[in-house]
Amino acid sequence: MSQRLPAEELTGIPGGTLITKTPEEGRQLAMLIARHTIHQIQPNPDALKAGRPEYAVDPDSLTAAAQVVAIEFQTIAAANNYWR
Amino acid sequence: MSQRLPAEELTGIPGGTLITKTPEEGRQLAMLIARHTIHQIQPNPDALKAGRPEYAVDPDSLTAAAQVVAIEFQTIAAANNYWR
Amino acid sequence: MSQRLPAEELTGIPGGTLITKTPEEGRQLAMLIARHTIHQIQPNPDALKAGRPEYAVDPDSLTAAAQVVAIEFQTIAAANNYWR
Amino acid sequence: MSQRLPAEELTGIPGGTLITKTPEEGRQLAMLIARHTIHQIQPNPDALKAGRPEYAVDPDSLTAAAQVVAIEFQTIAAANNYWR
Amino acid sequence: MSQRLPAEELTGIPGGTLITKTPEEGRQLAMLIARHTIHQIQPNPDALKAGRPEYAVDPDSLTAAAQVVAIEFQTIAAANNYWR
Amino acid sequence: MSQRLPAEELTGIPGGTLITKTPEEGRQLAMLIARHTIHQIQPNPDALKAGRPEYAVDPDSLTAAAQVVAIEFQTIAAANNYWR
Repeated sequence: MSQRLPAEELTGIPGGTLITKTPEEGRQLAMLIARHTIHQIQPNPDALKAGRPEYAVDPDSLTAAAQVVAIEFQTIAAANNYWR
Repeated sequence: MSQRLPAEELTGIPGGTLITKTPEEGRQLAMLIARHTIHQIQPNPDALKAGRPEYAVDPDSLTAAAQVVAIEFQTIAAANNYWR
Repeated sequence: MSQRLPAEELTGIPGGTLITKTPEEGRQLAMLIARHTIHQIQPNPDALKAGRPEYAVDPDSLTAAAQVVAIEFQTIAAANNYWR
Repeated sequence: MSQRLPAEELTGIPGGTLITKTPEEGRQLAMLIARHTIHQIQPNPDALKAGRPEYAVDPDSLTAAAQVVAIEFQTIAAANNYWR
Repeated sequence: MSQRLPAEELTGIPGGTLITKTPEEGRQLAMLIARHTIHQIQPNPDALKAGRPEYAVDPDSLTAAAQVVAIEFQTIAAANNYWR
Repeated sequence: MSQRLPAEELTGIPGGTLITKTPEEGRQLAMLIARHTIHQIQPNPDALKAGRPEYAVDPDSLTAAAQVVAIEFQTIAAANNYWR
Protein backbone atom coordinates (compact mmCIF):
# COMPACT_ATOMS: atom_id res chain seq x y z
CA MET A 1 0.00 0.00 0.00
CA SER A 2 1.55 3.25 -1.13
CA GLN A 3 2.11 5.87 1.56
CA ARG A 4 3.31 8.56 -0.79
CA LEU A 5 2.50 9.65 -4.34
CA PRO A 6 5.16 8.79 -6.96
CA ALA A 7 7.77 11.47 -7.67
CA GLU A 8 6.28 12.48 -11.03
CA GLU A 9 3.06 13.50 -9.26
CA LEU A 10 5.02 15.91 -7.08
CA THR A 11 6.85 17.99 -9.69
CA GLY A 12 5.92 21.65 -9.31
CA ILE A 13 5.99 22.48 -13.03
CA PRO A 14 5.53 19.29 -15.10
CA GLY A 15 7.70 19.61 -18.22
CA GLY A 16 9.79 22.30 -16.54
CA THR A 17 8.46 25.23 -18.59
CA LEU A 18 5.41 27.48 -18.79
CA ILE A 19 5.71 27.75 -22.58
CA THR A 20 3.27 25.61 -24.55
CA LYS A 21 2.41 25.30 -28.22
CA THR A 22 -1.30 25.97 -27.84
CA PRO A 23 -3.80 27.48 -25.38
CA GLU A 24 -5.28 24.03 -24.94
CA GLU A 25 -1.92 22.63 -23.81
CA GLY A 26 -1.53 25.66 -21.57
CA ARG A 27 -4.87 24.92 -19.98
CA GLN A 28 -3.90 21.30 -19.31
CA LEU A 29 -0.67 22.52 -17.75
CA ALA A 30 -2.62 24.89 -15.47
CA MET A 31 -4.75 21.97 -14.34
CA LEU A 32 -1.68 19.80 -13.72
CA ILE A 33 0.17 22.49 -11.78
CA ALA A 34 -2.85 23.07 -9.56
CA ARG A 35 -3.17 19.36 -8.88
CA HIS A 36 0.52 18.89 -8.15
CA THR A 37 0.44 21.73 -5.64
CA ILE A 38 -2.20 19.81 -3.73
CA HIS A 39 0.02 16.72 -3.97
CA GLN A 40 3.00 18.62 -2.62
CA ILE A 41 1.03 19.84 0.39
CA GLN A 42 -0.56 16.44 0.99
CA PRO A 43 1.57 13.67 -0.57
CA ASN A 44 -0.33 10.83 1.11
CA PRO A 45 -2.64 9.30 -1.54
CA ASP A 46 -4.98 7.82 1.06
CA ALA A 47 -5.57 11.21 2.67
CA LEU A 48 -6.32 12.67 -0.76
CA LYS A 49 -8.75 9.88 -1.62
CA ALA A 50 -10.54 10.21 1.72
CA GLY A 51 -11.62 13.76 0.97
CA ARG A 52 -12.54 13.18 -2.67
CA PRO A 53 -16.12 11.75 -2.41
CA GLU A 54 -17.51 14.84 -0.69
CA TYR A 55 -15.39 17.37 -2.56
CA ALA A 56 -16.21 16.04 -6.02
CA VAL A 57 -19.96 16.54 -5.66
CA ASP A 58 -19.89 19.83 -3.75
CA PRO A 59 -20.40 22.68 -6.25
CA ASP A 60 -18.63 25.18 -3.98
CA SER A 61 -15.57 22.95 -3.78
CA LEU A 62 -15.56 22.58 -7.55
CA THR A 63 -15.87 26.35 -7.99
CA ALA A 64 -12.95 26.93 -5.63
CA ALA A 65 -10.83 24.41 -7.52
CA ALA A 66 -11.77 26.06 -10.83
CA GLN A 67 -10.61 29.39 -9.44
CA VAL A 68 -7.15 28.04 -8.69
CA VAL A 69 -6.92 26.71 -12.24
CA ALA A 70 -8.01 30.13 -13.54
CA ILE A 71 -5.19 31.83 -11.63
CA GLU A 72 -2.56 29.34 -12.80
CA PHE A 73 -3.79 29.73 -16.38
CA GLN A 74 -3.50 33.51 -16.09
CA THR A 75 0.20 33.11 -15.40
CA ILE A 76 0.73 30.59 -18.20
CA ALA A 77 -1.25 32.61 -20.74
CA ALA A 78 0.79 35.75 -20.00
CA ALA A 79 4.04 33.74 -20.22
CA ASN A 80 2.97 32.70 -23.73
CA ASN A 81 2.01 36.24 -24.72
CA TYR A 82 -1.54 34.88 -24.76
CA TRP A 83 -0.73 32.81 -27.91
CA ARG A 84 -1.60 35.73 -30.17
CA MET B 1 -27.69 6.76 -19.25
CA SER B 2 -24.54 8.76 -19.80
CA GLN B 3 -21.80 8.31 -17.24
CA ARG B 4 -19.52 10.92 -18.71
CA LEU B 5 -20.00 14.28 -20.42
CA PRO B 6 -19.38 14.27 -24.21
CA ALA B 7 -15.86 15.19 -25.35
CA GLU B 8 -16.81 18.68 -26.57
CA GLU B 9 -17.85 19.59 -23.01
CA LEU B 10 -14.37 18.73 -21.76
CA THR B 11 -12.20 20.88 -24.03
CA GLY B 12 -10.13 23.26 -21.93
CA ILE B 13 -10.25 26.18 -24.40
CA PRO B 14 -13.26 25.79 -26.72
CA GLY B 15 -12.23 27.06 -30.17
CA GLY B 16 -8.57 26.65 -29.26
CA THR B 17 -7.78 30.36 -28.96
CA LEU B 18 -8.24 33.24 -26.51
CA ILE B 19 -8.63 35.74 -29.35
CA THR B 20 -12.19 36.85 -30.06
CA LYS B 21 -13.75 39.45 -32.33
CA THR B 22 -15.66 41.28 -29.62
CA PRO B 23 -15.73 41.71 -25.83
CA GLU B 24 -19.11 39.99 -25.81
CA GLU B 25 -17.63 36.89 -27.47
CA GLY B 26 -14.74 37.07 -25.04
CA ARG B 27 -17.17 37.09 -22.16
CA GLN B 28 -18.98 34.03 -23.47
CA LEU B 29 -15.63 32.29 -23.85
CA ALA B 30 -14.76 33.11 -20.22
CA MET B 31 -18.03 31.55 -19.13
CA LEU B 32 -17.41 28.45 -21.25
CA ILE B 33 -13.85 27.98 -20.03
CA ALA B 34 -14.99 28.24 -16.41
CA ARG B 35 -17.73 25.69 -17.00
CA HIS B 36 -15.45 23.25 -18.83
CA THR B 37 -12.96 23.37 -15.98
CA ILE B 38 -15.70 22.15 -13.68
CA HIS B 39 -16.49 19.44 -16.24
CA GLN B 40 -12.87 18.35 -16.37
CA ILE B 41 -12.68 18.01 -12.59
CA GLN B 42 -16.05 16.27 -12.38
CA PRO B 43 -16.95 14.66 -15.74
CA ASN B 44 -19.90 12.70 -14.38
CA PRO B 45 -23.09 14.54 -15.45
CA ASP B 46 -25.18 13.01 -12.67
CA ALA B 47 -22.80 14.24 -9.99
CA LEU B 48 -22.97 17.73 -11.52
CA LYS B 49 -26.75 17.70 -11.67
CA ALA B 50 -27.02 16.51 -8.07
CA GLY B 51 -25.35 19.64 -6.74
CA ARG B 52 -27.13 22.08 -9.04
CA PRO B 53 -30.47 22.65 -7.21
CA GLU B 54 -28.83 24.02 -4.08
CA TYR B 55 -25.99 25.83 -5.82
CA ALA B 56 -28.19 27.67 -8.30
CA VAL B 57 -30.27 29.42 -5.65
CA ASP B 58 -27.47 30.13 -3.17
CA PRO B 59 -26.29 33.72 -3.68
CA ASP B 60 -22.85 32.97 -2.25
CA SER B 61 -22.35 30.10 -4.68
CA LEU B 62 -23.39 32.35 -7.55
CA THR B 63 -21.00 35.07 -6.40
CA ALA B 64 -18.14 32.54 -6.21
CA ALA B 65 -18.92 31.31 -9.72
CA ALA B 66 -19.05 34.90 -11.00
CA GLN B 67 -15.61 35.49 -9.54
CA VAL B 68 -14.12 32.61 -11.51
CA VAL B 69 -15.66 34.03 -14.69
CA ALA B 70 -14.20 37.45 -13.81
CA ILE B 71 -10.71 35.97 -13.52
CA GLU B 72 -10.98 34.03 -16.79
CA PHE B 73 -12.26 37.17 -18.51
CA GLN B 74 -9.30 39.15 -17.17
CA THR B 75 -6.98 36.77 -19.02
CA ILE B 76 -9.01 36.86 -22.23
CA ALA B 77 -9.40 40.65 -22.21
CA ALA B 78 -5.65 41.14 -21.81
CA ALA B 79 -4.97 38.60 -24.58
CA ASN B 80 -7.14 40.75 -26.86
CA ASN B 81 -5.44 43.98 -25.80
CA TYR B 82 -8.79 44.78 -24.19
CA TRP B 83 -10.39 45.22 -27.65
CA ARG B 84 -9.36 48.87 -27.78
CA MET C 1 -45.23 35.78 -14.29
CA SER C 2 -41.79 35.97 -15.90
CA GLN C 3 -39.75 32.79 -15.79
CA ARG C 4 -36.69 34.32 -17.33
CA LEU C 5 -34.96 37.70 -17.13
CA PRO C 6 -35.33 39.90 -20.25
CA ALA C 7 -32.56 39.62 -22.86
CA GLU C 8 -30.95 42.97 -21.97
CA GLU C 9 -30.26 41.67 -18.46
CA LEU C 10 -28.30 38.76 -19.90
CA THR C 11 -25.79 40.58 -22.11
CA GLY C 12 -22.26 39.73 -21.01
CA ILE C 13 -20.76 43.16 -21.72
CA PRO C 14 -23.53 45.81 -21.74
CA GLY C 15 -22.65 48.38 -24.43
CA GLY C 16 -20.32 45.89 -26.09
CA THR C 17 -17.07 47.59 -25.07
CA LEU C 18 -14.81 47.94 -22.03
CA ILE C 19 -13.87 51.49 -23.01
CA THR C 20 -15.60 54.23 -21.01
CA LYS C 21 -15.25 58.00 -20.84
CA THR C 22 -14.65 58.19 -17.10
CA PRO C 23 -13.60 55.99 -14.17
CA GLU C 24 -17.08 56.45 -12.72
CA GLU C 25 -18.65 55.00 -15.87
CA GLY C 26 -16.08 52.22 -15.76
CA ARG C 27 -17.10 51.42 -12.22
CA GLN C 28 -20.76 51.25 -13.15
CA LEU C 29 -19.86 48.93 -16.01
CA ALA C 30 -17.94 46.66 -13.61
CA MET C 31 -21.02 46.48 -11.41
CA LEU C 32 -23.27 45.70 -14.39
CA ILE C 33 -20.98 43.01 -15.78
CA ALA C 34 -20.80 41.31 -12.38
CA ARG C 35 -24.58 41.39 -12.06
CA HIS C 36 -25.18 40.09 -15.58
CA THR C 37 -22.83 37.17 -14.96
CA ILE C 38 -25.08 36.15 -12.07
CA HIS C 39 -28.07 36.55 -14.40
CA GLN C 40 -26.46 34.32 -17.02
CA ILE C 41 -25.79 31.57 -14.51
CA GLN C 42 -29.25 31.89 -12.93
CA PRO C 43 -31.69 33.52 -15.40
CA ASN C 44 -34.78 32.75 -13.33
CA PRO C 45 -35.80 36.00 -11.58
CA ASP C 46 -37.72 34.18 -8.86
CA ALA C 47 -34.69 32.11 -7.89
CA LEU C 48 -32.63 35.30 -7.71
CA LYS C 49 -35.20 37.09 -5.58
CA ALA C 50 -35.49 34.12 -3.22
CA GLY C 51 -31.86 34.41 -2.17
CA ARG C 52 -31.77 38.20 -1.94
CA PRO C 53 -33.23 38.85 1.58
CA GLU C 54 -30.49 36.91 3.35
CA TYR C 55 -27.66 37.87 1.02
CA ALA C 56 -28.33 41.60 1.15
CA VAL C 57 -27.91 41.86 4.91
CA ASP C 58 -25.02 39.42 5.30
CA PRO C 59 -21.76 41.39 5.46
CA ASP C 60 -19.71 38.45 4.21
CA SER C 61 -21.95 38.08 1.15
CA LEU C 62 -21.63 41.80 0.45
CA THR C 63 -17.84 41.61 0.80
CA ALA C 64 -17.71 38.67 -1.62
CA ALA C 65 -19.83 40.57 -4.13
CA ALA C 66 -17.61 43.64 -3.75
CA GLN C 67 -14.59 41.49 -4.53
CA VAL C 68 -16.07 40.37 -7.84
CA VAL C 69 -16.73 44.01 -8.76
CA ALA C 70 -13.13 44.86 -7.81
CA ILE C 71 -11.80 42.19 -10.18
CA GLU C 72 -14.06 43.28 -13.07
CA PHE C 73 -13.01 46.89 -12.47
CA GLN C 74 -9.35 45.89 -12.59
CA THR C 75 -9.89 44.61 -16.13
CA ILE C 76 -11.85 47.67 -17.22
CA ALA C 77 -9.39 50.13 -15.67
CA ALA C 78 -6.45 48.48 -17.44
CA ALA C 79 -8.40 48.45 -20.74
CA ASN C 80 -8.78 52.22 -20.36
CA ASN C 81 -5.11 52.73 -19.48
CA TYR C 82 -6.43 53.67 -16.05
CA TRP C 83 -7.91 56.93 -17.47
CA ARG C 84 -4.64 58.76 -16.91
CA MET D 1 -35.11 58.08 9.71
CA SER D 2 -33.02 57.74 6.57
CA GLN D 3 -33.90 54.82 4.34
CA ARG D 4 -31.09 55.37 1.92
CA LEU D 5 -27.48 56.52 2.20
CA PRO D 6 -26.79 60.06 0.91
CA ALA D 7 -25.67 60.35 -2.74
CA GLU D 8 -22.02 61.08 -1.89
CA GLU D 9 -21.79 57.68 -0.18
CA LEU D 10 -22.85 55.98 -3.40
CA THR D 11 -20.32 57.39 -5.87
CA GLY D 12 -18.35 54.57 -7.46
CA ILE D 13 -15.04 56.45 -7.69
CA PRO D 14 -14.99 59.31 -5.14
CA GLY D 15 -13.13 62.23 -6.74
CA GLY D 16 -13.70 60.75 -10.20
CA THR D 17 -10.11 59.66 -10.79
CA LEU D 18 -7.72 56.87 -9.81
CA ILE D 19 -4.75 59.24 -9.87
CA THR D 20 -3.54 60.38 -6.44
CA LYS D 21 -0.56 62.39 -5.24
CA THR D 22 0.75 59.79 -2.82
CA PRO D 23 0.49 56.06 -2.06
CA GLU D 24 -1.21 56.96 1.22
CA GLU D 25 -3.95 58.85 -0.63
CA GLY D 26 -4.20 55.93 -3.04
CA ARG D 27 -4.72 53.59 -0.14
CA GLN D 28 -7.48 55.75 1.32
CA LEU D 29 -9.13 55.80 -2.10
CA ALA D 30 -8.98 51.99 -2.27
CA MET D 31 -10.71 51.82 1.09
CA LEU D 32 -13.37 54.32 0.01
CA ILE D 33 -14.07 52.55 -3.29
CA ALA D 34 -14.47 49.21 -1.52
CA ARG D 35 -16.86 50.76 0.97
CA HIS D 36 -18.92 52.55 -1.67
CA THR D 37 -19.32 49.31 -3.60
CA ILE D 38 -20.94 47.82 -0.53
CA HIS D 39 -23.14 50.92 -0.30
CA GLN D 40 -24.20 50.58 -3.92
CA ILE D 41 -25.21 46.95 -3.44
CA GLN D 42 -26.96 47.68 -0.13
CA PRO D 43 -27.93 51.37 0.07
CA ASN D 44 -30.11 50.94 3.17
CA PRO D 45 -28.10 52.23 6.16
CA ASP D 46 -30.12 50.21 8.66
CA ALA D 47 -29.37 46.96 6.84
CA LEU D 48 -25.69 47.84 6.84
CA LYS D 49 -25.69 48.68 10.55
CA ALA D 50 -27.51 45.45 11.40
CA GLY D 51 -24.67 43.32 10.09
CA ARG D 52 -21.85 45.42 11.52
CA PRO D 53 -21.63 44.17 15.15
CA GLU D 54 -20.84 40.61 14.16
CA TYR D 55 -18.75 41.45 11.12
CA ALA D 56 -16.48 43.92 12.88
CA VAL D 57 -15.24 41.42 15.46
CA ASP D 58 -14.98 38.39 13.19
CA PRO D 59 -11.35 38.02 12.05
CA ASP D 60 -12.37 36.14 8.90
CA SER D 61 -14.76 38.92 7.89
CA LEU D 62 -12.02 41.48 8.47
CA THR D 63 -9.56 39.44 6.41
CA ALA D 64 -12.07 39.18 3.55
CA ALA D 65 -12.64 42.94 3.64
CA ALA D 66 -8.88 43.56 3.66
CA GLN D 67 -8.58 41.39 0.55
CA VAL D 68 -11.05 43.55 -1.35
CA VAL D 69 -9.07 46.65 -0.38
CA ALA D 70 -5.87 44.92 -1.54
CA ILE D 71 -7.39 44.27 -4.97
CA GLU D 72 -8.70 47.82 -5.35
CA PHE D 73 -5.31 49.16 -4.31
CA GLN D 74 -3.61 46.99 -6.91
CA THR D 75 -5.60 48.77 -9.60
CA ILE D 76 -4.94 52.23 -8.18
CA ALA D 77 -1.22 51.60 -7.67
CA ALA D 78 -0.80 50.43 -11.28
CA ALA D 79 -2.80 53.45 -12.52
CA ASN D 80 -0.29 55.66 -10.73
CA ASN D 81 2.71 53.75 -12.10
CA TYR D 82 3.21 52.67 -8.50
CA TRP D 83 4.27 56.24 -7.53
CA ARG D 84 7.87 55.51 -8.46
CA MET E 1 -7.29 51.34 28.79
CA SER E 2 -6.85 52.28 25.16
CA GLN E 3 -10.01 52.35 23.08
CA ARG E 4 -8.25 52.99 19.83
CA LEU E 5 -4.99 51.89 18.28
CA PRO E 6 -2.25 54.57 18.14
CA ALA E 7 -2.06 56.63 14.94
CA GLU E 8 1.07 54.88 13.62
CA GLU E 9 -0.86 51.60 13.56
CA LEU E 10 -3.46 53.16 11.26
CA THR E 11 -1.27 54.51 8.45
CA GLY E 12 -2.32 52.96 5.15
CA ILE E 13 1.19 52.76 3.67
CA PRO E 14 3.81 52.82 6.46
CA GLY E 15 6.82 54.78 5.19
CA GLY E 16 4.65 56.41 2.53
CA THR E 17 6.14 54.52 -0.43
CA LEU E 18 5.93 51.10 -2.10
CA ILE E 19 9.60 51.24 -3.10
CA THR E 20 11.93 49.15 -0.93
CA LYS E 21 15.61 48.24 -1.15
CA THR E 22 15.12 44.48 -1.04
CA PRO E 23 12.43 41.84 -1.62
CA GLU E 24 12.62 41.00 2.08
CA GLU E 25 11.76 44.60 3.01
CA GLY E 26 9.00 44.52 0.42
CA ARG E 27 7.57 41.42 2.02
CA GLN E 28 7.58 43.03 5.47
CA LEU E 29 5.82 46.04 3.98
CA ALA E 30 3.15 43.78 2.45
CA MET E 31 2.56 42.24 5.87
CA LEU E 32 2.36 45.67 7.53
CA ILE E 33 -0.04 47.08 4.94
CA ALA E 34 -2.33 44.07 5.32
CA ARG E 35 -2.31 44.44 9.09
CA HIS E 36 -2.95 48.17 9.00
CA THR E 37 -5.93 47.66 6.73
CA ILE E 38 -7.44 45.47 9.42
CA HIS E 39 -6.64 48.20 11.95
CA GLN E 40 -8.35 50.84 9.82
CA ILE E 41 -11.51 48.77 9.53
CA GLN E 42 -11.47 47.83 13.22
CA PRO E 43 -9.44 50.37 15.23
CA ASN E 44 -10.55 49.07 18.62
CA PRO E 45 -7.67 46.97 20.03
CA ASP E 46 -9.96 45.03 22.37
CA ALA E 47 -12.15 43.91 19.48
CA LEU E 48 -9.06 42.78 17.58
CA LYS E 49 -7.71 40.87 20.57
CA ALA E 50 -11.05 39.18 21.17
CA GLY E 51 -10.96 37.46 17.79
CA ARG E 52 -7.29 36.54 17.88
CA PRO E 53 -7.28 33.29 19.96
CA GLU E 54 -9.52 31.42 17.54
CA TYR E 55 -8.15 32.98 14.37
CA ALA E 56 -4.51 32.31 15.17
CA VAL E 57 -4.94 28.56 15.45
CA ASP E 58 -7.41 28.09 12.60
CA PRO E 59 -5.48 26.98 9.49
CA ASP E 60 -8.16 28.36 7.15
CA SER E 61 -7.97 31.77 8.79
CA LEU E 62 -4.19 31.73 8.46
CA THR E 63 -4.44 30.73 4.81
CA ALA E 64 -6.89 33.57 4.14
CA ALA E 65 -4.56 36.05 5.83
CA ALA E 66 -1.60 34.72 3.83
CA GLN E 67 -3.59 35.31 0.65
CA VAL E 68 -4.08 38.98 1.47
CA VAL E 69 -0.34 39.33 2.06
CA ALA E 70 0.31 37.60 -1.28
CA ILE E 71 -1.88 40.13 -3.09
CA GLU E 72 -0.29 43.14 -1.37
CA PHE E 73 3.16 41.73 -2.17
CA GLN E 74 2.19 41.35 -5.82
CA THR E 75 1.58 45.10 -5.98
CA ILE E 76 4.80 45.97 -4.15
CA ALA E 77 6.93 43.57 -6.21
CA ALA E 78 5.62 45.04 -9.47
CA ALA E 79 6.19 48.58 -8.16
CA ASN E 80 9.82 47.63 -7.60
CA ASN E 81 10.16 46.00 -11.03
CA TYR E 82 10.47 42.77 -9.09
CA TRP E 83 13.93 43.84 -7.79
CA ARG E 84 15.61 42.36 -10.83
CA MET F 1 10.16 22.35 23.94
CA SER F 2 10.37 25.04 21.29
CA GLN F 3 7.94 27.91 21.67
CA ARG F 4 8.91 29.59 18.45
CA LEU F 5 9.98 28.47 15.00
CA PRO F 6 13.71 28.95 14.21
CA ALA F 7 14.64 32.20 12.46
CA GLU F 8 15.19 30.59 9.04
CA GLU F 9 11.54 29.52 9.02
CA LEU F 10 10.47 33.13 9.43
CA THR F 11 12.30 34.81 6.54
CA GLY F 12 9.82 36.49 4.22
CA ILE F 13 11.71 35.76 1.00
CA PRO F 14 14.07 32.80 1.49
CA GLY F 15 17.23 33.47 -0.54
CA GLY F 16 16.40 37.18 -0.65
CA THR F 17 15.43 37.30 -4.33
CA LEU F 18 12.50 36.41 -6.58
CA ILE F 19 14.83 35.49 -9.44
CA THR F 20 15.34 31.77 -9.98
CA LYS F 21 17.09 29.69 -12.62
CA THR F 22 14.09 27.57 -13.55
CA PRO F 23 10.29 27.55 -13.28
CA GLU F 24 10.58 24.53 -10.98
CA GLU F 25 12.78 26.49 -8.57
CA GLY F 26 10.34 29.38 -8.84
CA ARG F 27 7.51 27.09 -7.88
CA GLN F 28 9.37 25.80 -4.84
CA LEU F 29 10.05 29.40 -3.83
CA ALA F 30 6.33 30.22 -4.13
CA MET F 31 5.55 27.32 -1.83
CA LEU F 32 8.21 28.41 0.67
CA ILE F 33 7.07 32.05 0.70
CA ALA F 34 3.48 30.99 1.31
CA ARG F 35 4.54 28.73 4.16
CA HIS F 36 6.77 31.35 5.76
CA THR F 37 3.95 33.87 5.71
CA ILE F 38 1.92 31.47 7.81
CA HIS F 39 4.93 31.11 10.11
CA GLN F 40 5.25 34.86 10.49
CA ILE F 41 1.60 35.24 11.45
CA GLN F 42 1.72 32.23 13.78
CA PRO F 43 5.30 31.55 14.90
CA ASN F 44 4.33 29.03 17.59
CA PRO F 45 5.04 25.55 16.19
CA ASP F 46 2.61 23.86 18.57
CA ALA F 47 -0.26 26.05 17.40
CA LEU F 48 0.61 25.22 13.79
CA LYS F 49 0.76 21.49 14.50
CA ALA F 50 -2.56 21.56 16.34
CA GLY F 51 -4.42 22.69 13.23
CA ARG F 52 -2.62 20.42 10.79
CA PRO F 53 -4.52 17.08 11.19
CA GLU F 54 -7.85 18.56 10.12
CA TYR F 55 -6.47 20.96 7.55
CA ALA F 56 -4.35 18.38 5.72
CA VAL F 57 -7.28 16.11 4.89
CA ASP F 58 -9.85 18.80 4.14
CA PRO F 59 -10.01 19.31 0.34
CA ASP F 60 -11.29 22.88 0.71
CA SER F 61 -8.37 23.79 2.96
CA LEU F 62 -5.96 22.27 0.47
CA THR F 63 -7.59 24.18 -2.39
CA ALA F 64 -7.32 27.45 -0.44
CA ALA F 65 -3.64 26.78 0.26
CA ALA F 66 -3.04 25.97 -3.42
CA GLN F 67 -4.61 29.30 -4.35
CA VAL F 68 -2.13 31.22 -2.20
CA VAL F 69 0.74 29.36 -3.87
CA ALA F 70 -0.75 30.21 -7.28
CA ILE F 71 -0.78 33.91 -6.42
CA GLU F 72 2.79 33.89 -5.09
CA PHE F 73 3.91 32.02 -8.20
CA GLN F 74 2.24 34.62 -10.41
CA THR F 75 4.49 37.26 -8.87
CA ILE F 76 7.63 35.14 -9.15
CA ALA F 77 6.92 34.08 -12.75
CA ALA F 78 6.42 37.69 -13.83
CA ALA F 79 9.61 38.73 -12.01
CA ASN F 80 11.46 36.13 -14.08
CA ASN F 81 9.82 37.26 -17.33
CA TYR F 82 8.09 33.89 -17.21
CA TRP F 83 11.42 32.12 -17.97
CA ARG F 84 10.86 32.48 -21.70
